[in-house]
Amino acid sequence: MPTRICIVGCGAIGGLYAAHLAQLPEVEVWAYDTSEDQVATINQNGLRITGSVELVGRVQARTDAAAIPPCSIGILATKGTVTEPAIKATAQLFADGVVCSVQNGIGNEEIIAEHVPRVMRGITLPAVQLLEPGVIHLHAPGPTWIGPFEPKPATTEEITGLAVLLNSCGMQTSAMADARGAQWTKLLFNCSTNPLCALTGLTHGQLCEHAPSRRLAGALIEEGRAVANALGITLEDDPAVLIDTAGKTNFNHRPSMLQDVSARRGTEIQTLNGGIVSQATQLGVPAPLNAAIVELILGLEHSWTR
Amino acid sequence: MPTRICIVGCGAIGGLYAAHLAQLPEVEVWAYDTSEDQVATINQNGLRITGSVELVGRVQARTDAAAIPPCSIGILATKGTVTEPAIKATAQLFADGVVCSVQNGIGNEEIIAEHVPRVMRGITLPAVQLLEPGVIHLHAPGPTWIGPFEPKPATTEEITGLAVLLNSCGMQTSAMADARGAQWTKLLFNCSTNPLCALTGLTHGQLCEHAPSRRLAGALIEEGRAVANALGITLEDDPAVLIDTAGKTNFNHRPSMLQDVSARRGTEIQTLNGGIVSQATQLGVPAPLNAAIVELILGLEHSWTR
Repeated sequence: MPTRICIVGCGAIGGLYAAHLAQLPEVEVWAYDTSEDQVATINQNGLRITGSVELVGRVQARTDAAAIPPCSIGILATKGTVTEPAIKATAQLFADGVVCSVQNGIGNEEIIAEHVPRVMRGITLPAVQLLEPGVIHLHAPGPTWIGPFEPKPATTEEITGLAVLLNSCGMQTSAMADARGAQWTKLLFNCSTNPLCALTGLTHGQLCEHAPSRRLAGALIEEGRAVANALGITLEDDPAVLIDTAGKTNFNHRPSMLQDVSARRGTEIQTLNGGIVSQATQLGVPAPLNAAIVELILGLEHSWTR
Repeated sequence: MPTRICIVGCGAIGGLYAAHLAQLPEVEVWAYDTSEDQVATINQNGLRITGSVELVGRVQARTDAAAIPPCSIGILATKGTVTEPAIKATAQLFADGVVCSVQNGIGNEEIIAEHVPRVMRGITLPAVQLLEPGVIHLHAPGPTWIGPFEPKPATTEEITGLAVLLNSCGMQTSAMADARGAQWTKLLFNCSTNPLCALTGLTHGQLCEHAPSRRLAGALIEEGRAVANALGITLEDDPAVLIDTAGKTNFNHRPSMLQDVSARRGTEIQTLNGGIVSQATQLGVPAPLNAAIVELILGLEHSWTR
């Protein structure tokens, strides 16, 4: 019997996972998405990946979770702004299964764990873009790390099992006993670049070459690093080094939050810098700059309301 | 012999002063401005004020300071970004005179004092807008405070003399022994509203009604208040109260820095929050939020360069 997997939120990242996993004969891939357009196109044409790899995956997509059979694995890939409705709508599929978040930021696993028995933290770095419904451009492949969500952990077998499947279909994945170091590394990377680019209009490369902006990015990382330290989390890599490297290799990249505010879409600020502030507040560690950045992005979003 | 006064920078605020002073038979008003268009229109049609008052003033305007005779009083009303070239170009007019800054922010008097013998601090609150060259709309009149710039002070006679002239022509003005409390009150008002509206697109009223934005505005004021305290300056009024009052009476006001960034014009950030940071650094008082705001506005300006 094939392993049944449901991708929850089949946009750029979700679609990348769905199309890859659909290459495996031992896997049956379903997708849940709220977009009728997206779902219809996927059912008709499959999911096409272009760019660094070229492949098409056959995926059964639905806007109604009741039309999807029970699955042993869920991969949740929505924006952090809709984690709650997405897992609420699909939780019954995973009553005996495990759900892995591959979303940005922190705090998503906590929401998912309110609805399903076992949860994985997932961190994923591919650079992707949804070109049109059902068509995803892979600008650059990138690794994935998965590990337990400590309060409601997936079993070791589930974590290594998913890693084996993902590696089999070409998604480079590491199973970890503790994925928090990888998660916080990506968190601090995103928190120091995404909102600053969103507020200023700078590309990632411009941000890194402009001394005052780069100083602020560094100060945001240092606040976040202190929170990670207080949580006993050892970062996987130095985010300050990573942002400079990315600034050189991907100078003209417009981070997703800059794309969001340009399109006047709600941002993921609450699971990014808002996640740091929330942890900092619980720990009594100061994070005033991250708090100010959250307030500025919320102000920007508020300006669209009238 | 009439008192000869030169307005340096004859935009909205400078033009308001010039047109009012030109009503006085005992005053001869000259204007220096770098805009050929502005100067030609003023010489041809005079300066027209509309709105809260209606008047036309005859003013002799020049783009070449060498074509202006020596003056006993200068009123410098340029943007803080061009204080240095403006006073360099006109300093010889005031070799035996006094120059009063009526600009936003702090640090302008220091620059002026490098070039002329005696300087006044001026703080002015009218809400004005340059409708077209030579035509200024007065949205709301507002008071002016003038006092000595301590390291190179104007004499008491010069300060009271200018206050008498301004009051005579309808510009409500108070001569003060110490104008720093008024200057810092306006500074903290501007520093907590101008850059936040510029970064978020919020109007003044929206900023005050949106709790996260209002909290950040308050935090910026508190940092600035601590710097004022360390300088021994007693604020004239509570900026936190003033911004809320203005938010109600002038809800849809787009602060000048928001207008500047919308038009991609360089902002006055260095004499506003940058001025607070500069003083804080000298005093060893922390001002990390004001520093972050300066860095964000500089980043925004940098994004226009490519």
